[in-house]
Amino acid sequence: MATLPGADPLLTDALAKTGRQVDSLFDALLPVPEDGRGRLVEAMRHAAIGGGKRLRPLLTVASAGLFGVHPHHALRAGTAIEAVHVYSLIHDDLPCMDDDDLRRGKPTVHKAFDEATAVLAGDALQALAFEILADPETSGDPFVRSELIAVLATASGVGGMAGGQMLDLVGEGQAFDLPAITRMQQLKTGALLGVALEMGAVLGKVPPEARTPLRGYARDIGLAFQIADDLIDHAGDSAAAGKAVGKDAAAGKQTFVAVLGEARAREQARMLTEQAIGHLSGHGAEADLLRAVARYIVERDR
Amino acid sequence: MATLPGADPLLTDALAKTGRQVDSLFDALLPVPEDGRGRLVEAMRHAAIGGGKRLRPLLTVASAGLFGVHPHHALRAGTAIEAVHVYSLIHDDLPCMDDDDLRRGKPTVHKAFDEATAVLAGDALQALAFEILADPETSGDPFVRSELIAVLATASGVGGMAGGQMLDLVGEGQAFDLPAITRMQQLKTGALLGVALEMGAVLGKVPPEARTPLRGYARDIGLAFQIADDLIDHAGDSAAAGKAVGKDAAAGKQTFVAVLGEARAREQARMLTEQAIGHLSGHGAEADLLRAVARYIVERDR
Repeated sequence: MATLPGADPLLTDALAKTGRQVDSLFDALLPVPEDGRGRLVEAMRHAAIGGGKRLRPLLTVASAGLFGVHPHHALRAGTAIEAVHVYSLIHDDLPCMDDDDLRRGKPTVHKAFDEATAVLAGDALQALAFEILADPETSGDPFVRSELIAVLATASGVGGMAGGQMLDLVGEGQAFDLPAITRMQQLKTGALLGVALEMGAVLGKVPPEARTPLRGYARDIGLAFQIADDLIDHAGDSAAAGKAVGKDAAAGKQTFVAVLGEARAREQARMLTEQAIGHLSGHGAEADLLRAVARYIVERDR
Repeated sequence: MATLPGADPLLTDALAKTGRQVDSLFDALLPVPEDGRGRLVEAMRHAAIGGGKRLRPLLTVASAGLFGVHPHHALRAGTAIEAVHVYSLIHDDLPCMDDDDLRRGKPTVHKAFDEATAVLAGDALQALAFEILADPETSGDPFVRSELIAVLATASGVGGMAGGQMLDLVGEGQAFDLPAITRMQQLKTGALLGVALEMGAVLGKVPPEARTPLRGYARDIGLAFQIADDLIDHAGDSAAAGKAVGKDAAAGKQTFVAVLGEARAREQARMLTEQAIGHLSGHGAEADLLRAVARYIVERDR
């Protein structure tokens, strides 16, 4: 679990707790079959358990906390998003994509297992995400379940993560301007972070027209998160990041740091954080965790 | 569209009509964005439109027909299953999996585009499947939508298609006995065919305990289908099959033909067909299409 020296204890506790809970839920959802499928499930567990900041589940828990949702429901919904996030990392790391050997401080799935198993493990984790959401344990209200699934499916496909990854691939070696890179990152990273927050509102049965402040917060922290990621890739060290760094520039990938320069990128991330926190002004102490997350996103080093 | 000389006109018409409808629905669901995601959507369209027997959507339409479901709803649900089927073909054809160059008479996606695009196109088609099912256009009843999603997610993941593909991978070069190969095929192919039929019952709000005959039919045609596939791979020609044939034996894959021999495999498929039709004895003429499908499955040449 990621902790920060001097970080908000509210956030440190929430990150640690969510991390334990997500691990334990994945552990329960992924029993290892005693036949040849054991290898597939071991690969899914390798990627899903014991790593990552669990930022998306934390966002769902924090957002659900604004609307009095039972944490068990928020945790399951957030873990479904994490399953999609983890599957995208497995496929992203494949030799035909980013060709990475290290992820979350461990060998990537195709390194620890093999490429075919990595493709299938990613595929099965995407299916697992929707299996979690369709289960009445996530919400007793079928309308809520159906809406959770609709927002996750949209944010995963062409209109979200997969579309953003395609823009990223197509953009390699091309010069993007700021609007183009912003659009790419909103799809690639922003959509799933946005869903993490949206799901809290869906579980809380908040009508769409009342979700505007939360969506503003989501948009701002999504961009701030990606700028911070680019800064980590630009300046960080791979031991702290738990993955290869400095690869984006080498691959000719478009990053905020490449377009804005380091100083302006850092300033932009800080401004977005303040703006994100501004969107929470209608809430009291119950939004403190979301405020702490916004600050953490730009201050983290991995 | 697949047609058979002397085939049941009811079936010939239904296959042609379903084929057109599935193509037209995919066409509507996959508008090509005018940015870099265009390439991703073109790859999805390449795989999803204008090919294949559309057996799974046909099964959903035929099953829904037993229970008075509106064909529009059945077509959408069946197209969601087809999206999962198509994504699995794209990923199956990848160099790290079966490494095929030809599918449905066209170059495979990684040949016509590239490997990274093929991985993403498969991923995005899986997301599309759940997007279709979560849409109120598929069913106005959120409970029905949630159940459709639950059965599809289960049949796609470790407990279904992805699990069966893993057993297939692990089994390469090993000697399987008949129970082991049956189990593998029930997961790899049978689960998704079973869901195609189950969805008709879900849309028709048939309680689970009343679905036993349909499930028996599904199990039998699922196995018959796979035996017929093995026979096509064993004896067919690649022009008729629209894909490479004879590769399974070369790859040391476990097939029913390898275990039973050609004559017994053919006999077994015929017996399963009769057994499948027997499960429909409680139905009258409204089940004629399902009866015709059962016969078609073993008589087809691709």
